[in-house]
Amino acid sequence: MKVTFLGTGGAGLPSKNRNVTSIILDLLQETNNMWMFDCGESTQHQILYTSIKPRKINKIFITHLHGDHIYGLPGFLSSRSFQGGVDPVTIFGPAGIKSFINTSLSVNKSKPSYPIDIIEIKEGIIYEDDQFIVKAKRLEHVIESFGFRIDEKESKGSLLVDKLKADGIYPGPIYQLFKSQDTVKLTDGTVVPSSNYIGDPKQGKSVAILGDTRAKTDVIPFVANVDLLVHEATFAKGQEQLAYDYFHSTTDQAATIAARAQVKKIILTHISSRFQKDDTVQLETEAKQQFENATIAEDFYTYPL
Amino acid sequence: MKVTFLGTGGAGLPSKNRNVTSIILDLLQETNNMWMFDCGESTQHQILYTSIKPRKINKIFITHLHGDHIYGLPGFLSSRSFQGGVDPVTIFGPAGIKSFINTSLSVNKSKPSYPIDIIEIKEGIIYEDDQFIVKAKRLEHVIESFGFRIDEKESKGSLLVDKLKADGIYPGPIYQLFKSQDTVKLTDGTVVPSSNYIGDPKQGKSVAILGDTRAKTDVIPFVANVDLLVHEATFAKGQEQLAYDYFHSTTDQAATIAARAQVKKIILTHISSRFQKDDTVQLETEAKQQFENATIAEDFYTYPL
Repeated sequence: MKVTFLGTGGAGLPSKNRNVTSIILDLLQETNNMWMFDCGESTQHQILYTSIKPRKINKIFITHLHGDHIYGLPGFLSSRSFQGGVDPVTIFGPAGIKSFINTSLSVNKSKPSYPIDIIEIKEGIIYEDDQFIVKAKRLEHVIESFGFRIDEKESKGSLLVDKLKADGIYPGPIYQLFKSQDTVKLTDGTVVPSSNYIGDPKQGKSVAILGDTRAKTDVIPFVANVDLLVHEATFAKGQEQLAYDYFHSTTDQAATIAARAQVKKIILTHISSRFQKDDTVQLETEAKQQFENATIAEDFYTYPL
Repeated sequence: MKVTFLGTGGAGLPSKNRNVTSIILDLLQETNNMWMFDCGESTQHQILYTSIKPRKINKIFITHLHGDHIYGLPGFLSSRSFQGGVDPVTIFGPAGIKSFINTSLSVNKSKPSYPIDIIEIKEGIIYEDDQFIVKAKRLEHVIESFGFRIDEKESKGSLLVDKLKADGIYPGPIYQLFKSQDTVKLTDGTVVPSSNYIGDPKQGKSVAILGDTRAKTDVIPFVANVDLLVHEATFAKGQEQLAYDYFHSTTDQAATIAARAQVKKIILTHISSRFQKDDTVQLETEAKQQFENATIAEDFYTYPL
């Protein structure tokens, strides 16, 4: 599992340094797919400079409907079709996302080469399968804006090969039985519980990716203990009034949330274009004063979990 | 008057070398404004690398509703607003353009800072003022696609200063009268017609910019004698069947139209991404075999008229 930032700008429009928002959650190892969070204009252009294959992206989560988070969707979806994507895509987003996508795609009378399912979300569990559960929570922004928490479920422990060998059970097809059956009958007729030879369950990873928002303490239980929190920081420490007025957060405020929620790592994104490349060190320092394991994202920055 | 190509790719999706379609007709000298023809995704990003000011663009002409010609519109219009544009914009395009723009802009509940007038066009004169007349003609594409012909009107000739001086009329406020009145009364009481001292009317420039189309001879009268014809050439000479099947043109076919329409210059754009940078010379050579004054456009190529 890794997270790649395709666009990290937060001025509502692109700059030469930072494109508008899009984030990829790479689950190739876990599911052979990738998930996308937001899709600002030119996201498909950014993808040209990565090894990401649009056809591998099978879920798209939209935090809110501001243009800098969705205007890349029609192009991305169309190009995925041009590039021969056939696997279905599910899109989760606030009310209105359906009409935006359907109008954009129908206006040119071409049908995508794959099925698109659009789900307009509310708070709560919005997706669940054997491996993952995704929850949504409303944030505080000028329009409805969601945060997403993705929890990988606990998975079975590994086979304890050393213990098996010590007990005289040597590698062969029988090892597979310990993984798939509750009990295994040995060659001498003894029946042993598989759990004797399976290690502790592996805890799943957890990531929270929030849309534009004022930094609010009521998000703390929602993001508590995640391995990675992605939080916006449109403004710097000292610009609290600006952040409040425009329904955004400062570096300092976002890092405080990370500290109180006891997350393992925070990455700050949606950085205003008023900041130049040289300002990144200062922005990161402000965050680190509240929470040491903080990073300011840049376009194409990847964080492995 | 000059024409700048912001995107010259013709594969329906962007490549690293060529963005999807957008063309600027720079009328700063004539009207202090610019007009845009098509607005594929990332057009606003391309503009970041030019001196073009979005607030100066006051008319947008859309040839057809394929994504690679319109998916940059919502972002461009929103950013023009963010950047403090206040002058109205008029958008001309095929039926459907209104619903696409209105849905895209209304989904996020933010109102642009300037009025937008959207006109769904038919063939014929679609715009006229004191200086310009714009006509639209239907082309032959998989969906409704238009070509535009922009004719600058004839303008008054210059004041013949040498002749005035030779006749003893020396520079002063009286020179202004020769420009603004039909007759001028000289200091000795003589009344002379202004036309004696005004040169021949200046012929206006003319440009034709066509959307995606099969190369069709019935467009010849429409583009006849223009100073510049912008024609698509998605395919190369020899790919006539592909061009026909996908409702596009080859270099060779487009240049033949230029020759028969006796235009002064043809610029070919909408070049398929199957062609690499190295192929440009060959594509241009094919065109020049039919019409010498032919150029293959590249992103940011500017042609002064």
